[in-house]
Amino acid sequence: MNAETKARLMRVSTATLATLLYRRGLRNQFIQGVTRLSKHDENMVGPAFTLRYMPAREDRNGLEVFRDREHPQRKAIEMCPPGAVMVIDSRKDARAASAGGILISRLFQRGVVGVVTDGGFRDSAEIANIGIGAYQQRPSAPTNLTLHEAIDINVPVGCGDAPVFPGDILVGDADGVIVIPAHIADEVAEEAIEMTIFEDFVMERVAKGQSILGLYPPTDEQTLKDFEAWRQANQL
Amino acid sequence: MNAETKARLMRVSTATLATLLYRRGLRNQFIQGVTRLSKHDENMVGPAFTLRYMPAREDRNGLEVFRDREHPQRKAIEMCPPGAVMVIDSRKDARAASAGGILISRLFQRGVVGVVTDGGFRDSAEIANIGIGAYQQRPSAPTNLTLHEAIDINVPVGCGDAPVFPGDILVGDADGVIVIPAHIADEVAEEAIEMTIFEDFVMERVAKGQSILGLYPPTDEQTLKDFEAWRQANQL
Amino acid sequence: MNAETKARLMRVSTATLATLLYRRGLRNQFIQGVTRLSKHDENMVGPAFTLRYMPAREDRNGLEVFRDREHPQRKAIEMCPPGAVMVIDSRKDARAASAGGILISRLFQRGVVGVVTDGGFRDSAEIANIGIGAYQQRPSAPTNLTLHEAIDINVPVGCGDAPVFPGDILVGDADGVIVIPAHIADEVAEEAIEMTIFEDFVMERVAKGQSILGLYPPTDEQTLKDFEAWRQANQL
Amino acid sequence: MNAETKARLMRVSTATLATLLYRRGLRNQFIQGVTRLSKHDENMVGPAFTLRYMPAREDRNGLEVFRDREHPQRKAIEMCPPGAVMVIDSRKDARAASAGGILISRLFQRGVVGVVTDGGFRDSAEIANIGIGAYQQRPSAPTNLTLHEAIDINVPVGCGDAPVFPGDILVGDADGVIVIPAHIADEVAEEAIEMTIFEDFVMERVAKGQSILGLYPPTDEQTLKDFEAWRQANQL
Amino acid sequence: MNAETKARLMRVSTATLATLLYRRGLRNQFIQGVTRLSKHDENMVGPAFTLRYMPAREDRNGLEVFRDREHPQRKAIEMCPPGAVMVIDSRKDARAASAGGILISRLFQRGVVGVVTDGGFRDSAEIANIGIGAYQQRPSAPTNLTLHEAIDINVPVGCGDAPVFPGDILVGDADGVIVIPAHIADEVAEEAIEMTIFEDFVMERVAKGQSILGLYPPTDEQTLKDFEAWRQANQL
Amino acid sequence: MNAETKARLMRVSTATLATLLYRRGLRNQFIQGVTRLSKHDENMVGPAFTLRYMPAREDRNGLEVFRDREHPQRKAIEMCPPGAVMVIDSRKDARAASAGGILISRLFQRGVVGVVTDGGFRDSAEIANIGIGAYQQRPSAPTNLTLHEAIDINVPVGCGDAPVFPGDILVGDADGVIVIPAHIADEVAEEAIEMTIFEDFVMERVAKGQSILGLYPPTDEQTLKDFEAWRQANQL
Repeated sequence: MNAETKARLMRVSTATLATLLYRRGLRNQFIQGVTRLSKHDENMVGPAFTLRYMPAREDRNGLEVFRDREHPQRKAIEMCPPGAVMVIDSRKDARAASAGGILISRLFQRGVVGVVTDGGFRDSAEIANIGIGAYQQRPSAPTNLTLHEAIDINVPVGCGDAPVFPGDILVGDADGVIVIPAHIADEVAEEAIEMTIFEDFVMERVAKGQSILGLYPPTDEQTLKDFEAWRQANQL
Repeated sequence: MNAETKARLMRVSTATLATLLYRRGLRNQFIQGVTRLSKHDENMVGPAFTLRYMPAREDRNGLEVFRDREHPQRKAIEMCPPGAVMVIDSRKDARAASAGGILISRLFQRGVVGVVTDGGFRDSAEIANIGIGAYQQRPSAPTNLTLHEAIDINVPVGCGDAPVFPGDILVGDADGVIVIPAHIADEVAEEAIEMTIFEDFVMERVAKGQSILGLYPPTDEQTLKDFEAWRQANQL
Repeated sequence: MNAETKARLMRVSTATLATLLYRRGLRNQFIQGVTRLSKHDENMVGPAFTLRYMPAREDRNGLEVFRDREHPQRKAIEMCPPGAVMVIDSRKDARAASAGGILISRLFQRGVVGVVTDGGFRDSAEIANIGIGAYQQRPSAPTNLTLHEAIDINVPVGCGDAPVFPGDILVGDADGVIVIPAHIADEVAEEAIEMTIFEDFVMERVAKGQSILGLYPPTDEQTLKDFEAWRQANQL
Repeated sequence: MNAETKARLMRVSTATLATLLYRRGLRNQFIQGVTRLSKHDENMVGPAFTLRYMPAREDRNGLEVFRDREHPQRKAIEMCPPGAVMVIDSRKDARAASAGGILISRLFQRGVVGVVTDGGFRDSAEIANIGIGAYQQRPSAPTNLTLHEAIDINVPVGCGDAPVFPGDILVGDADGVIVIPAHIADEVAEEAIEMTIFEDFVMERVAKGQSILGLYPPTDEQTLKDFEAWRQANQL
Repeated sequence: MNAETKARLMRVSTATLATLLYRRGLRNQFIQGVTRLSKHDENMVGPAFTLRYMPAREDRNGLEVFRDREHPQRKAIEMCPPGAVMVIDSRKDARAASAGGILISRLFQRGVVGVVTDGGFRDSAEIANIGIGAYQQRPSAPTNLTLHEAIDINVPVGCGDAPVFPGDILVGDADGVIVIPAHIADEVAEEAIEMTIFEDFVMERVAKGQSILGLYPPTDEQTLKDFEAWRQANQL
Repeated sequence: MNAETKARLMRVSTATLATLLYRRGLRNQFIQGVTRLSKHDENMVGPAFTLRYMPAREDRNGLEVFRDREHPQRKAIEMCPPGAVMVIDSRKDARAASAGGILISRLFQRGVVGVVTDGGFRDSAEIANIGIGAYQQRPSAPTNLTLHEAIDINVPVGCGDAPVFPGDILVGDADGVIVIPAHIADEVAEEAIEMTIFEDFVMERVAKGQSILGLYPPTDEQTLKDFEAWRQANQL
């Protein structure tokens, strides 16, 4: 993805991005029901590389399947590009793990910046500290074979009821993860920076005791003047 | 599919089939959460032809998309082979329809024997009377575009938490729908007929007041003798 | 409501209406999770008269409260206008009844044409046969006082996750109930008749074996010609 | 149970009973989430005989377990007294069956009058026609061994979030099933008859166009006079 | 609210309060399904000021609506009295935000002591640190317009299945939030202090190894004597 | 339980144990939907001592019931053996507490090492710091009497959909809690240590940048050689 866009998306919130997508008629781009597991405050930003799980059939999912180097789960771990975010469609089922500490560590070593599942991770305490962005529904110890069979790599999927196409830009913060369609990522990032600067101004005013009426949104003419002055003063 | 297998599966219950799959270690082949909409008492039997839905993104799902003859939903309707059962993976989301009366009528005209969604149908009263087997979670009037985008034709999917591979044999009765892996369909059908004959015998005995102890399962030697006699008498 | 609009809405389906609302950007007008209890095939059509329930607090909801003629539930039953549909916001909680046979009979006597709750009814077998349109989540014997306190009459509410404003036009059929905003009811009804005529034509063609490609939607020029001919022939 | 109490409970509704229990401070006696499967209009009335299921562990639940005549599920079927209602605590899990057609037929042969599970039945079409009262969440083909192990016979259980003690009186109608604590069954039945007579009177008045205000509840003195007259005229 | 009552409620737990409400027959006053977002250990105590959301209809909820100074959400933020707790009835739907960092900061500036939603907040990391008590179901980035329309200010509402009347006293701690009906707040607060002192005594005894039998509840006469001695010794 | 087994289980993860149980055909031993409340990093390991709750009936659950020293909840607290883990079957209902700070403190004083409920605890902040392992669904202030009646001590139960027999070995870590059937605990613990050593080796390799292909599982012959060398070098 565009380096400038990435830099911008590192500095804005999923809330701001959600509003900009809403303005474009996109209402379902927030991945529902997942929370941040990873213990770091930086945004997670990168293009989606997807993995689709289907319900596991017992005769196809003995522990021996991982001996096959072509097994889609293991293959995906080695294929996911540096800088990407792996998105696992686990059909919102966290009763078995989507992945565990070893695989996530490998992703991190390979330069992958995040991993998102609408199911759960095993070894969650470990994963929280690896340094990779990680989002899930809840921890889950059972091996993925119990309920999930990895069936497709990098196809369009659903994750937490949001549509995710390979290459869409994912941004995660403390609220969760939002999916920006690839073709509008640059413009949305640009607008998001502008909107964030304005919201920082608003926040400062609110902290000083100003009412939100006329300020947010800036329906008072004075607000826009104040903002311009503030912006110049702060060189933003 | 094998005509003899089909004939056999028309005469057995999903309960019997579930037990035979359980005996083989397959515990998750019943499509959860769907009920029969179609008003006929015949079993629905046929190989699965699948359609995968993902969450709809608004900018990709205006009403105009159906003008494209390559739209996967419409294409699938025309591709699904006669004798097959169309299985739609709607991610268990019945808030918008998976399909409606016109499309299901077209399937019926083309010789398709059934349609199953873990979402819902619109025009449900109509569909109930078409003559095709139809299973769903609950009726749903909104167009599928509201929440679903058809994305893949005839790939492995999940439906009601059950794994469905193209070609797997689906059987539906009043209890719901069960998925028999393709490679064991013939042997399971054969065993199911045998098991059904025995259960018919048991049912007759129970109706006459016999205890189930020793009868079901037949741990009394006498039960097996009685069964053989009954079977010969009834030429089964 | 406009008599012609009512007449039109009696003849169209909620599926057709949902599509027309979708075309206008309205995606959440279908009342989710309710099914028809009443045993008649006619559409239910009328303007919404609403009743809002809140969670019951035990000290405010002894059986004696109904002795008060001003109790909002009882008052609403006597206030709901003839021709209207009473919509009860039961917060999707069917663990206690929203109303029972006596009250619903009274509504019917007063000329009310339908009653919808996203909770449940008690005396459901009786209500099914009264002659009034009735939609609910599932039957529920406990008195409404157990969990619900009627608190507001004819205010904007949610019902089955759909927004309902007093005066909005509700239409119910076998699929469920849809909410048409009051200010577009006339135009939507008119378009719905047109769309229904076209769909009847399509259905006839499909029943004769025609493919849906080019027919539905009518991207073949010939389809539109055929439709016009059919329409004239059938004087529609 | 008392024959007169039984006769009375055959003639009243679960809604009426729920109100009488509510008057006594009992708010959770309705079995939530189950619907009537059996196709007959008579009430189901009888004392509870319970069966408790726990989650199945695979190594304890091979098909061979039913060969053991002491298996609690099979034993319970043969122990449940004539006139009783078997109540199965399936932990609200309908993903596998609680019982099937053969066992339920045996119960019916033995004089058991009803069977209730907060899970589901297999062979549901058959069970609907046996003649025994049957209530469940939804049909379910998989053998109970898949998810349920019968572990206790006739202990206090929960069913659909209601407490059920052995010997409590269960009453089922089209709304569902209610649990009357054993020690108050006689008095509740007596009151229920009285209340039903009054409600029949109210229903007749409402059908003739009378307002519910002053009538239901009878806060108008005249209502009580009219009721007495009506009662005498009808010899009730 | 009464300053002494407030001081008392700052020192007791929601668990203690729940027991005192239970003693009065109030069983549903705990707001279900919300957890504390704010990072401070102090109780949140104040009278309820409510805001009711209904499902959003797209044509009424463009981003421009906030330009209207009379928009109920914005108006409520400026109206909520200092010392109060704002309670938002979001119909338990956390798929879109109930409010975000700027509005919550404004509430804090205005002296509002807490905010509770049965939906979710956006900018959750920010809100956690503002200093205001904040309780929610889970974080949610999408703007409230996506699913919620603020429709009523300071009316009786439901929040997490609990009834909340304007002026009821809300108390939040690490367990969650409980609603004390306004008219009993003073007496409940007084009893709660007494009960807390006794429980502190019990806790000390338990920490020293005493059995709970006879101690909790104090059925041993000696317990009451010990308690009196302890109380005097500690001047409580 | 065997001291060596306990020592081993203190050093392995629930994820590793889940895989070993999966290998034995046991797929449902992880307690679903509970998370760790207690703030300590040590594993919770001990044999299960169970308590079964059923839905509370109001007339049996006044606050006075705890004055009875034979009340099963209080009795269980005094009976649960040192070293054990108390497992409470709360039917996955967290709307009322399973237990509170005083009882859990008493358990801790008595040497009990953990407590697990598929419902919730009150006084959760206190319990988090007692020093005992504690797992729950979510905090819940209402007294258990509101919804739960303790009915059976040390019988087989379900907890979070997992089967738990008295004496089964429970192990909890940051992912949650797993149930090891008593008769295989020793062998599973032994294997788990071996598997953990290998996984530590794998983790070290992954951290150094090695691919998982051929390493995990060790399908490359070299991996096994490297492992043996590493193991000797580290004296494991």
